[in-house]
Amino acid sequence: MKKRILSTLGLAAVAAALNANIAPAADALPSWQDGAAKKAIVEFVAKVTKEGGPDFVSPAERIAVFDNDGTLWAEQPMYFQLAFALDRVKALAPQHPEWQEKEPYKSALKSDLKGVLAGGEHALLELLAGIHTGMTTEEFEQIVKDWLATAKHPKTERLYTEMVYQPMLELLAYLRANGFKTYIVSGGGVEFMRVWSEEVYGIPPEQVVGSSGKQKFEMRDGRPVLVKVAELDHWDDKEGKPLAIQRFIGRRPIAAFGNSDGDRPMLQWTTAGDGARFTLLVHHTDAEREWAYDRKSSIGRLDKALDEAKAKGWSVVSMKDDWKRIFPFENK
Amino acid sequence: MKKRILSTLGLAAVAAALNANIAPAADALPSWQDGAAKKAIVEFVAKVTKEGGPDFVSPAERIAVFDNDGTLWAEQPMYFQLAFALDRVKALAPQHPEWQEKEPYKSALKSDLKGVLAGGEHALLELLAGIHTGMTTEEFEQIVKDWLATAKHPKTERLYTEMVYQPMLELLAYLRANGFKTYIVSGGGVEFMRVWSEEVYGIPPEQVVGSSGKQKFEMRDGRPVLVKVAELDHWDDKEGKPLAIQRFIGRRPIAAFGNSDGDRPMLQWTTAGDGARFTLLVHHTDAEREWAYDRKSSIGRLDKALDEAKAKGWSVVSMKDDWKRIFPFENK
Repeated sequence: MKKRILSTLGLAAVAAALNANIAPAADALPSWQDGAAKKAIVEFVAKVTKEGGPDFVSPAERIAVFDNDGTLWAEQPMYFQLAFALDRVKALAPQHPEWQEKEPYKSALKSDLKGVLAGGEHALLELLAGIHTGMTTEEFEQIVKDWLATAKHPKTERLYTEMVYQPMLELLAYLRANGFKTYIVSGGGVEFMRVWSEEVYGIPPEQVVGSSGKQKFEMRDGRPVLVKVAELDHWDDKEGKPLAIQRFIGRRPIAAFGNSDGDRPMLQWTTAGDGARFTLLVHHTDAEREWAYDRKSSIGRLDKALDEAKAKGWSVVSMKDDWKRIFPFENK
Repeated sequence: MKKRILSTLGLAAVAAALNANIAPAADALPSWQDGAAKKAIVEFVAKVTKEGGPDFVSPAERIAVFDNDGTLWAEQPMYFQLAFALDRVKALAPQHPEWQEKEPYKSALKSDLKGVLAGGEHALLELLAGIHTGMTTEEFEQIVKDWLATAKHPKTERLYTEMVYQPMLELLAYLRANGFKTYIVSGGGVEFMRVWSEEVYGIPPEQVVGSSGKQKFEMRDGRPVLVKVAELDHWDDKEGKPLAIQRFIGRRPIAAFGNSDGDRPMLQWTTAGDGARFTLLVHHTDAEREWAYDRKSSIGRLDKALDEAKAKGWSVVSMKDDWKRIFPFENK
């Protein structure tokens, strides 16, 4: 009988039906202070999941998109992927004597962040594409895995994958428990993030959208491989975010989370749809437990988006005031 | 209690657990003759879903990719999207007097297929991108919807969305009932297919990968829109298919279905992974109920892939011999 019901309804419908029975637990967001941001999140989730209510959204349309750097994990004193790139340049330098005199490699070898960052995040992506040219996707994945298992953050001396925000982990789980599909839409490299996104965030590779370098298909020893070439394919920042959402997901999100001006077009695109919408910015206000930066920062600049948030009523999280705990490794 | 179990396991795990109880029904593929192709499909599904078996594949990795034109729906006497393009050129011609003397518009206005197809599928995609320049994604979606609701196939006089293969609809449902995630990976335009893929195939927009034109993000009357520009972004054929699978899905499929040489790299990429793999080609052998074409056809040419299928043991469906019914509207 059970079998018959399942094949009649289809699994998706069954999952949705079961899902409707999960009331949002009162403590689904224990690391959030009981402030305006938490209240807004819970109210939004309640109204879009209320069957028969005026704001009900079917589970298939419950798409939530998250920026990564500065929204789900930290990004200071440099984008973590930049730390990876610097380590890679150093590891590969013996095979490239020309790098001693060539920028941005020269700056990278001296750990001169300013020199490397002179070209912005875009230059970082080109640097990454350049140093991994000719490598297969499988080889690259292994290098990322090895690096993540050993590299430590310069301030906390923790693994980079421990530098994720506990309140955001709770938020991801809370949204998924309420039938949302959670996506990363980040300026970071898609093949860099996919290696660990499932384990760390519970976000599977097919729900990670990011910047990408071009690749080519070729045969090596009679076996097809995908090989990285030194050309940027998509830069997933600013206008690139809504464009990638359309290309990869093909549905407009109903909720979007970011922390910088680079996320502004994604939040604008999200709120421009019909029906209930939710947008939130993470504001880095905690110099003690994390970092404090916004309008003047070269990394994660939050300026125009902060003004727009105030003008349009987007939620803004003050990390200092709204989050009881920032990293999972902190004492509760 | 039920609620508690659900929140502990997570919905995905619950769905997987329920799914494990669905034995493959004996008649899940009623339109398939009991031949080698059906046997190979059922055996493959049985072994990758057998928990504890040597070929077991976790549900998250059960990715199946399907070409569309000639694999899921017909593609004669021309790609259906080409029929759409011809109708669009005719509808827009009054606003473009210059098209009377300019190829491929000139051929399109005379319904001269040879002239339009002189540049191949690639030219068709450029034609499509060209005629819709400046249009928002929402406007384009509405045009596709309107066309699909009224345009009729020249031979059958059926709606194009009725010209889908009944055995493949059964196969899609059968794979999904066994925990597979089914994707389209097609040379067709992604925004053309997404409009109807869910209703016709049960494949949601985020699981449709296809060719795409570039777009730009802009503000119109203070509202953000995505606007088509006249430039091809990705041509999802041949090597473009495995490249797009890597970019969009980020996992290697374990099963791939196609019908032409354009699908060969996708099938090669699929079989090159570790563990059990399944690949199948649809061979158009039925001149009476559908069409018969292969090595010499300009549309859906099946030549090198057919040789490779024989050499490597890929399954080949002969539509005439292996399918009891081809279209859903045929008498059973």
